[in-house]
Amino acid sequence: MSQDLEYIPLEDAKCLATDILLAAGLSEGHAEAIAKSVVSAQRDECFSHGLWRLLGCVATVSKGKVDPKAVPAIDASAPGIVKVDAKFGFSLLAFREGLPDLIGKANRFGIAAMAINHCYHFSALWPEIEEITEAGLVALAMTPSHSWVAPAGGKKPVFGTNPIAFGWPRPASNPFVFDFATSAAARGEIELHRRAGKPIPLGWAIDSDGNDTADATKAMEGAMLTFGGHKGSALSAMIELMAGPLIADMTSAESMAFDEGAGVAPCHGEIIIALDPKVFLGSGMEQNMRRAEDMFAAITSQGARLPSQRRYEARARNESRGIPVQTSLLEELKSTLASLA
Amino acid sequence: MSQDLEYIPLEDAKCLATDILLAAGLSEGHAEAIAKSVVSAQRDECFSHGLWRLLGCVATVSKGKVDPKAVPAIDASAPGIVKVDAKFGFSLLAFREGLPDLIGKANRFGIAAMAINHCYHFSALWPEIEEITEAGLVALAMTPSHSWVAPAGGKKPVFGTNPIAFGWPRPASNPFVFDFATSAAARGEIELHRRAGKPIPLGWAIDSDGNDTADATKAMEGAMLTFGGHKGSALSAMIELMAGPLIADMTSAESMAFDEGAGVAPCHGEIIIALDPKVFLGSGMEQNMRRAEDMFAAITSQGARLPSQRRYEARARNESRGIPVQTSLLEELKSTLASLA
Repeated sequence: MSQDLEYIPLEDAKCLATDILLAAGLSEGHAEAIAKSVVSAQRDECFSHGLWRLLGCVATVSKGKVDPKAVPAIDASAPGIVKVDAKFGFSLLAFREGLPDLIGKANRFGIAAMAINHCYHFSALWPEIEEITEAGLVALAMTPSHSWVAPAGGKKPVFGTNPIAFGWPRPASNPFVFDFATSAAARGEIELHRRAGKPIPLGWAIDSDGNDTADATKAMEGAMLTFGGHKGSALSAMIELMAGPLIADMTSAESMAFDEGAGVAPCHGEIIIALDPKVFLGSGMEQNMRRAEDMFAAITSQGARLPSQRRYEARARNESRGIPVQTSLLEELKSTLASLA
Repeated sequence: MSQDLEYIPLEDAKCLATDILLAAGLSEGHAEAIAKSVVSAQRDECFSHGLWRLLGCVATVSKGKVDPKAVPAIDASAPGIVKVDAKFGFSLLAFREGLPDLIGKANRFGIAAMAINHCYHFSALWPEIEEITEAGLVALAMTPSHSWVAPAGGKKPVFGTNPIAFGWPRPASNPFVFDFATSAAARGEIELHRRAGKPIPLGWAIDSDGNDTADATKAMEGAMLTFGGHKGSALSAMIELMAGPLIADMTSAESMAFDEGAGVAPCHGEIIIALDPKVFLGSGMEQNMRRAEDMFAAITSQGARLPSQRRYEARARNESRGIPVQTSLLEELKSTLASLA
């Protein structure tokens, strides 16, 4: 992909994304929710979760796996839980539909969980985390993927790349947000090294015999590793359990089997926990939010970065000059739209 | 400390621990709760959280920091939250007193949180996690400590060693439990290397100029590092926020300042989240618990270990032959008891 960038207005990017998704057969709700997420990622220069993902959405629809017009069904009967059945549609509309109940329950009980089930998932978690922090809540989200990652001490894949994301609302600035895979590297990174014929760093993966490998082809045939050794592996297992069996949905291994080799966006669940600082803190709200700010200042004042700082800097840059899009990607998106029309 | 081990009956270990704690001035409730925790750790051969910690408890009491007879106060007025004010006593009695409310709220709402405030904390989190899984619940616990750990990209300490622990109940075997510090190594490990004049592995710490160091003395003067680079650092920040400002308690930096160089057990808060699979799963309980077992089997069948496997093996060994105690430690504990009597 060429790295020549064009800058297009935010609204144009949204329209292009929405038009492609509608032309691919998605309902309006799905198209809007997905367009919002991928345009936000593109704006923040998270290109791996940006407009490029529209091509994957179109492919996932064309392979007949996803229901492009699925209407999510909400079950909010358990006091502290919102269950949203995405009915084998994409995840983002289900999130949008369930969010008001999640916020309402967190406001009322202090803590609440949302389980999104039976959804095709390809998006970053941080846009969802940001939306929850906008309601003044603390948020934690997890999701499995496909079983590409070996547990510590093992050599066969069990876990997905299993991202975990967290958000903390900040009164006077962008929220504190992180969102990372519990695999040592993204699968796409290894694939890029393979295509370029370049070695991968040791620690990313093992070959099919369980030996460390710098060979990207052998890594793709073997297993990826988690970040942080046995600690990362333990976290990845937690994510499988919390965003799988706990919410009656598939583990990464089951999701991979369900895909039947189609190679589309993985189908599985997602769990989101929201906590309301107002309920936890009452009249101590202001003092404790300041306490958190003191900690952030202790990090940034020594020149270290907060997790999303690069992303927020990109956002600030691009809000005036427009959304950066790779010229070749823009052409591909336009021709995709033309071919669908 | 000599590694010669003696094996003493579980009840004898409990009595010795309780007697020492009572002699040090702790109330019966505190003595029982602490004895249970340190004897469990000793039984499981987690010696760093075992009987050895009694010496630290006695020192913390003798320095006049902790209230040895503090009576925890419970505020369960928010529907999904149990707040337990430990009133500057040790944490374990507060946990024990709040646990029935935490379980009750999780049973009712599906998810609930317990905030323990103003507690002196020295114990492993896994014994608490195990108790929650015994009630059939999934559990997640976090706590700060003292600010010894630098954020990724920084060189000055901000975070504590900040442990995170998780548990998943298993119908037919010991629960799936992990409990690890988000620092790359335990502070005690670095201290042991310093005393032995041995270099520490790179990646554990930096010197006061922010450079990687293998020198344990320079590491103690500089800062420890988190495990897993920027990902571990992000998790450590999350733990500071969730187990600090969110529950109206001190961050690791504040806790260290509060200690005023006394070097006793750190005083801060702890957050525990409990989730009830029965509420999440309803009639799908059995099927989804089996799904989790399938994942555990995929890990163990390839020769990889589950996080607490070594601990459970030690427990099984020691249940019949008795609790292993280092001879020198046993002598020290007995003479401590004699000196307090």
